[in-house]
Amino acid sequence: MQALGVAGIAHAQDWEPLPSGIGRGRHVVVLGAGIAGLTSAYELEQAGFLVTLLEARDRVGGRAWTVRDGDRIEMNGEETQTARFSDGIYFNAGPARIPSFHQGLLGYAKKFGVPMEVEVNSSRSAYIMGDDGSKIRMRTAINDMRGRIAELLAKAINQGSLDRDLTAVDRERLMPFLKAYGDLDATGGFKGTERSGFGTAPGAGVTFASPSTAMPLDQLLANQRLPMTLFEDNLYMQATMFEPVGGMDRIHAGFDRHLRRPALLGAEVTQIRQSPSGVSVVYRDRSSGVVSTIAADYLVCTIPFPVLAKIDTNFSPRLKRTVAAVQYDYSNKVAFESPRFWEREQIYGGISFVGGPTALIWYPSAGLHSERGMILGCYSSGPAAAEFQKRPIAEQIAFSRGVIDRLHPGHGADCVNGLAVNWHKIPFSLGPWPDWNAGSANGRQEGHIDTADFRFLQEPEGRIYFASAALSQTPGWQEGGIQSARRQVSALARRTATDGGAVSRRAA
Amino acid sequence: MQALGVAGIAHAQDWEPLPSGIGRGRHVVVLGAGIAGLTSAYELEQAGFLVTLLEARDRVGGRAWTVRDGDRIEMNGEETQTARFSDGIYFNAGPARIPSFHQGLLGYAKKFGVPMEVEVNSSRSAYIMGDDGSKIRMRTAINDMRGRIAELLAKAINQGSLDRDLTAVDRERLMPFLKAYGDLDATGGFKGTERSGFGTAPGAGVTFASPSTAMPLDQLLANQRLPMTLFEDNLYMQATMFEPVGGMDRIHAGFDRHLRRPALLGAEVTQIRQSPSGVSVVYRDRSSGVVSTIAADYLVCTIPFPVLAKIDTNFSPRLKRTVAAVQYDYSNKVAFESPRFWEREQIYGGISFVGGPTALIWYPSAGLHSERGMILGCYSSGPAAAEFQKRPIAEQIAFSRGVIDRLHPGHGADCVNGLAVNWHKIPFSLGPWPDWNAGSANGRQEGHIDTADFRFLQEPEGRIYFASAALSQTPGWQEGGIQSARRQVSALARRTATDGGAVSRRAA
Repeated sequence: MQALGVAGIAHAQDWEPLPSGIGRGRHVVVLGAGIAGLTSAYELEQAGFLVTLLEARDRVGGRAWTVRDGDRIEMNGEETQTARFSDGIYFNAGPARIPSFHQGLLGYAKKFGVPMEVEVNSSRSAYIMGDDGSKIRMRTAINDMRGRIAELLAKAINQGSLDRDLTAVDRERLMPFLKAYGDLDATGGFKGTERSGFGTAPGAGVTFASPSTAMPLDQLLANQRLPMTLFEDNLYMQATMFEPVGGMDRIHAGFDRHLRRPALLGAEVTQIRQSPSGVSVVYRDRSSGVVSTIAADYLVCTIPFPVLAKIDTNFSPRLKRTVAAVQYDYSNKVAFESPRFWEREQIYGGISFVGGPTALIWYPSAGLHSERGMILGCYSSGPAAAEFQKRPIAEQIAFSRGVIDRLHPGHGADCVNGLAVNWHKIPFSLGPWPDWNAGSANGRQEGHIDTADFRFLQEPEGRIYFASAALSQTPGWQEGGIQSARRQVSALARRTATDGGAVSRRAA
Repeated sequence: MQALGVAGIAHAQDWEPLPSGIGRGRHVVVLGAGIAGLTSAYELEQAGFLVTLLEARDRVGGRAWTVRDGDRIEMNGEETQTARFSDGIYFNAGPARIPSFHQGLLGYAKKFGVPMEVEVNSSRSAYIMGDDGSKIRMRTAINDMRGRIAELLAKAINQGSLDRDLTAVDRERLMPFLKAYGDLDATGGFKGTERSGFGTAPGAGVTFASPSTAMPLDQLLANQRLPMTLFEDNLYMQATMFEPVGGMDRIHAGFDRHLRRPALLGAEVTQIRQSPSGVSVVYRDRSSGVVSTIAADYLVCTIPFPVLAKIDTNFSPRLKRTVAAVQYDYSNKVAFESPRFWEREQIYGGISFVGGPTALIWYPSAGLHSERGMILGCYSSGPAAAEFQKRPIAEQIAFSRGVIDRLHPGHGADCVNGLAVNWHKIPFSLGPWPDWNAGSANGRQEGHIDTADFRFLQEPEGRIYFASAALSQTPGWQEGGIQSARRQVSALARRTATDGGAVSRRAA
């Protein structure tokens, strides 16, 4: 059944859970209760391991951070922001959507009984905004451009320009398809399509509907965001997408509820040591200041590499160099609370693309049709984000509000209680994901993730395994963290089958 | 702000509610508690009219019929079917989705506090199935076909074939856009795209992702359903779409809750009379058989024309002829309960197009990620539906199950408790919507809704007004019923301003 056009979607269900009971009598300490740490801890517990999960923050979830009323946003070098949201409003400062094929994450959500709702990632009523502030509805940009492309191709085929490239059968089938594709008229011309909206809207009585006027090709092409009409067909962005009801962290809370030994919160790791016979971790309880040491047989470290680089370890020099060399990218989000003015423009969820350092306006899928909601005025990464996060927080917020006001005139002032999250400044994260090519310790390889450093960190050093979305091919997606965790705990479990029993018990 | 590309969506909010108090002392009888009757009754009451709303069925909603466990499906000439659904599962036998621009209906839902959820009308994981049973995922059909089209157009432009049709500036901008559009390689060739799915899926470790293999153009064009990839851009089908949580009839129940005088259920109209001074309606209580007469000043009739044609009236001969001449279309739905095998194929909502008399397989948006759900195995209208509904009910159900099994091998047997609804046989409906051109009494006009009969029925006869989605330009959509009702009650209300007071009170 794996015929062309049918297969090709990852099935995370293919993963084989660890053999039941294989971990009996062995103790693993897992560092970090983000998705990779939670997955590691959960799967190891299911296989009979004793697990101690340490988390420096006062919550689980890591970057899957849902900010609610009263929550504090602490960032290095910035004054603390305190979230002020009306009842039920929240802001997913990290991941905020789950594609259908991320079956690992969706599987855990289902297993833990976490209610999901549809995340509307694409609305035909949203806009693309050109650099000059001109805006086009998605429905118009998509369907008028398709009309223009179909019209041009029909013309070329009718002229015989592609006779060498198309068989007579292809031509015969392609021409009627192009008419359907572009909603062309009988002569193959594009005169506008109802798909792009109404000229006159249909009603009762005798005023009949007409399609909107066709946009000229040059006006469409003049909008610098026109390629963003393809965003919805990025495989990671395709319908159907999901979000947990009430905030992304509901999944991570589900993990924690299903751990026999929930995460120890506020436990900041200060030292990691291993010997041939085991590992030990020193951590400080952040509220009391009390310092403790845990000994275990193995360690799964999910701490982001820029954070790990500052921890006292007895890693090998090469491992230390490699960890220290991993540079993390920049990513910012700016969120507001507002009355839902966008829904009065018939925008229910979806994204408007605006260019510039804020990149987009992302409308909430939660609470559709209610009075107020969270609107995202910025989500961008990379070099522009690196520059943007240098601005004072108040300026980041004002800038984002200004872009909202440019696209939705008069509504910038509706956007209140702005919050800016600059992931590079977030303690215990120090960035959203690695840029593997930025500073490799093992030789620079341009343009892809498959660097020597990336490969080096896939392997354990002694009793220490590294698991992180950063070590998957989708470092910006929670599924990557799950995949990495599953890979590492599988390797760890395989090894226990031949390690002659738990080292710590042998020592006892 | 009505620039090109921005406007063009109907705003039903533009409707002006009736002047408050204008109806004081006047009594209107409204026949039929579908969306047109409920809207008429609600808006008339808001304007101070006394309203009596008669409904022949034992429920409000008309075609907006949500079938739940234990509900009976009675159809003329067929044995009664009784719905057997597990907890929480239901079947919208009539309308089942609401587009963003149907602001009239969405507005009432919001006003009445009816919770809405996203109706996923398009899933990239659904299929198109060719006549030979071959199937292509939506994501592949859409993105590979776009790749092929972009490749062909790039070739024609590079050959200079369209130099007379494109300015140099257009060409310069169009070429990079086409590369983004089709995900073409540096030479303008289409070699496959990750948008269509993975060849190798991404994971952790060092097995890296690759795009799926490109489908040849002839294989894409050989699938007769390829044009259905455009379905999602039909303006009525575009994201974001909605459904009420728990069934479409929740909106109509909301109307009824907000009527001062809720609908009289089980009241079958047997006679309509009018005189210069008022109207009178005779109806029979269907459970007791008791016959009653109501006198009123005006009448708003929303009874489907094939049903109205059989009622004893003193309409003018021309009106009787016109009503009798309106022929209604055919429309069928077949529903099953099943474990959600389609979600294991990562299909969450959306539609697969299968051709033939059942046309589609429509996956539920309600209860995503739960164990069982309602799957629609048939929804079709027109001539093929007219033929299909001639088959015995058991055969309709078996045929639909067979098509499901063809697309989802082995899963036909999962589909149990099948129900078939043939709207042409449903009492008090006798069809889904008119085919205005099938039997006009006032001269046949091919191919559009604007017939002499359609225009004739827009006008009242004496004190009797006709309101129905059938008298709108969108007879298959609830919004059409709202628009027609609003138009007619507006006309009625304007008239009361000059009718010298309520006739029935003058007569007293």
